[in-house]
Amino acid sequence: MRLVIVGGSDAGVAAALRARELEPAAAVTVVLADAYPNYSICGLPFYLSREVEDWHRLAHRTAFDGIDLLLDHYAESLDLVGHTIRVRDAGGQLQTLPYDRLLVATGARPDLPDIPGMNVDGVFPLHTMGDSFAIDAYLRQGKCRKVTIVGAGYIGLEMADALKVRGVDVTVIGRSASPLPSVDQELGHEIEKELLRHAVRVLCGAEVTRVGRVGDRLVVTAGDLEDETDMVIVAPGVRPSSELAAAAGIRLGVAGAIAVDRSMRTSAPDVFAAGDCVETWHQLLGVHVYLPLGTTAHKQGRVAGENMIGGDRLFAGSLGTQVVKVFDLAIARTGLRDGEARQAGFDPVTVESAAWDHKAYYPGARELRIRITADRQSSRLLGAQILGHWQAQVAKRIDVFAAAIHNGMSVEGLNDLDLSYTPPLGSPWDAVQIAAQRWATAGR
Amino acid sequence: MRLVIVGGSDAGVAAALRARELEPAAAVTVVLADAYPNYSICGLPFYLSREVEDWHRLAHRTAFDGIDLLLDHYAESLDLVGHTIRVRDAGGQLQTLPYDRLLVATGARPDLPDIPGMNVDGVFPLHTMGDSFAIDAYLRQGKCRKVTIVGAGYIGLEMADALKVRGVDVTVIGRSASPLPSVDQELGHEIEKELLRHAVRVLCGAEVTRVGRVGDRLVVTAGDLEDETDMVIVAPGVRPSSELAAAAGIRLGVAGAIAVDRSMRTSAPDVFAAGDCVETWHQLLGVHVYLPLGTTAHKQGRVAGENMIGGDRLFAGSLGTQVVKVFDLAIARTGLRDGEARQAGFDPVTVESAAWDHKAYYPGARELRIRITADRQSSRLLGAQILGHWQAQVAKRIDVFAAAIHNGMSVEGLNDLDLSYTPPLGSPWDAVQIAAQRWATAGR
Repeated sequence: MRLVIVGGSDAGVAAALRARELEPAAAVTVVLADAYPNYSICGLPFYLSREVEDWHRLAHRTAFDGIDLLLDHYAESLDLVGHTIRVRDAGGQLQTLPYDRLLVATGARPDLPDIPGMNVDGVFPLHTMGDSFAIDAYLRQGKCRKVTIVGAGYIGLEMADALKVRGVDVTVIGRSASPLPSVDQELGHEIEKELLRHAVRVLCGAEVTRVGRVGDRLVVTAGDLEDETDMVIVAPGVRPSSELAAAAGIRLGVAGAIAVDRSMRTSAPDVFAAGDCVETWHQLLGVHVYLPLGTTAHKQGRVAGENMIGGDRLFAGSLGTQVVKVFDLAIARTGLRDGEARQAGFDPVTVESAAWDHKAYYPGARELRIRITADRQSSRLLGAQILGHWQAQVAKRIDVFAAAIHNGMSVEGLNDLDLSYTPPLGSPWDAVQIAAQRWATAGR
Repeated sequence: MRLVIVGGSDAGVAAALRARELEPAAAVTVVLADAYPNYSICGLPFYLSREVEDWHRLAHRTAFDGIDLLLDHYAESLDLVGHTIRVRDAGGQLQTLPYDRLLVATGARPDLPDIPGMNVDGVFPLHTMGDSFAIDAYLRQGKCRKVTIVGAGYIGLEMADALKVRGVDVTVIGRSASPLPSVDQELGHEIEKELLRHAVRVLCGAEVTRVGRVGDRLVVTAGDLEDETDMVIVAPGVRPSSELAAAAGIRLGVAGAIAVDRSMRTSAPDVFAAGDCVETWHQLLGVHVYLPLGTTAHKQGRVAGENMIGGDRLFAGSLGTQVVKVFDLAIARTGLRDGEARQAGFDPVTVESAAWDHKAYYPGARELRIRITADRQSSRLLGAQILGHWQAQVAKRIDVFAAAIHNGMSVEGLNDLDLSYTPPLGSPWDAVQIAAQRWATAGR
């Protein structure tokens, strides 16, 4: 069985490993457009902050027993009938690879704004290892005292943190009314305060319309603002890299992502797809959405790998669970927010409460802000958001909510969970349950 | 509706609050044998370490709107037919209180070993506020350079930590082969190393047979060992304080605890019971066990409070979820261990694995040791144990397992959970899922 996988990031490597684990006789080839198999793209801000000194550490492993890696090979085209794929190496040499089963895991790329100045020297996207080397080289020139980040989502905020660690002045410009538009504004305002506390300039609700060079400096124009700066990092959302599949006639779905079923099969026989290039089944919405996340890519890749060698596995679906650390805060979410739930036909109620991460009498207690969204009548849990100190177990508390939503629990059901307690690490009713009790009294 | 609650700790206060929340017209009286309503007994080691300077902080609240507290009132007897309870105050005055519904929440007391010397000056149990005041006073005399702790369970280990913080030499003597017999020996040995690393002497597999006074010192005898010391703290298990109920003819169950159904009703009409004095429904075993825990007491109390005013709530059952911090380690468990599962008729397999708490390239990554116990054939998750750095989200990771077990998930199902990820706080497959994948490959 010849398996060919296009893409060597989360989904591609997860699929390759899973297929080999279950079928050691499978011949697995992974085709990579660059030279960085299995690299943690999520780790780039920490490399750029120099908290990770050697970029090689961003990859846990770069070689895999029994898996052929074709580095710097670009996938040009698919022949779905002939079951072959044509690839071009760095020297321009073409090669045709036959496959029994193919996985398209071509990922995504930054959805750069269509404005003047994106190609000016000193303006960088951040998505690939190559991007981060370029940014690092520019910073190392030592002429960069100030960086302006366009985009106040996850990557923009992580980069603001990273560049402050590196000792550079930072301005963040975002379109949304508050930073991190993937959580509610009530929490976004806390994030804004945290950024200001660390001397990051924040400009929200602003649309960047151009970037230009004036002498040895750059000028970012957003409404009335002319922000003079030394470097611009563009951290927008991403869009699926689905061209290879589309050109072969494979059906596309939501947002131009490759259409897949829950077994990660595309519309073409023997062709699977996974990761940031595909649409993702949403567990609560019961429809496909475009929601590219590394965690999801790993899961979809694992499912695809299993099915490519004849398995029968379904992707369980995403809840959009996410967490980000911004300076001393962690901000996490899972499931649906109020507006999202309403749009999906639920009758949601969202209640915010505050609770200590552990017993207030034990040193170092931190307050958590927890927002629970649940259905008014059934009290079915639909979503949760948590903001608190990054060492206050925010990430794993959102995971308790995620496990509860996955299992269709109600808000009241959370009180039945036998959660752990010791004064330095929790409360007899964990913060998660205190929030549930507040929802029940305030929310109905 | 007159509600009388005997006991003002976790179960009693939780019941009182829940009843008043749902039925503001209820007349609620709480009878306490001491003067410390709602005090966190779990916090005593942290008061004795002086990490909590003022013992008043151990109670979050000591007064409650619309709830009468009878402090220092000892419940002498119940008249089940007449629906009254006789209480005696500190001055010896007797009083008879009528009730419509009664809650017995009389807790537990230390199960002191039946050996010579338990009453010698300098030998202390640790269970009540009074005990901890006595210990503190003895330590403050300044003559105490060394303390020997009899018992290597939760409280014994927390006290070892607490007394080292206070600058005292500590020896721990435990009966079990390794400290903290509630987790597997493989983890117990790590705990032993942690104790030694902090200069705590540990003697395991030793039965203390007597304590005696020799001059101004104490001698603890355990097998061949004669341990000379200045103070002995006895931290054994507990047994239910069920005498009040038993004397009234209420049925007792497992281990002499008050028999209850899942609505927390006893065998007597209109009499409920909750907390450390009752037997506890075990969710996995499907039988009652004696498993006194503060978290459980709160849940049982809340259920009882709701049902006392006419509600219809069932206690969901315990999984025995626990966590303890010992110096830099947190050790947690939920569900069943291998032997417990086997005894209950399962065919368990237990697999240990190691995983980083977050991406190894990000500073401060800690290794977690995770033991998963699951049924061989069905792969139904039965239990989990985690040992790791106390700031490595051990407690909330065991909670993810607890939520999974609560919902009857399989080990493989853990991989479907959409858990959060950012490099400083997790991995694309969380440690919980890496352990699940190891179980699947190694365990079958």
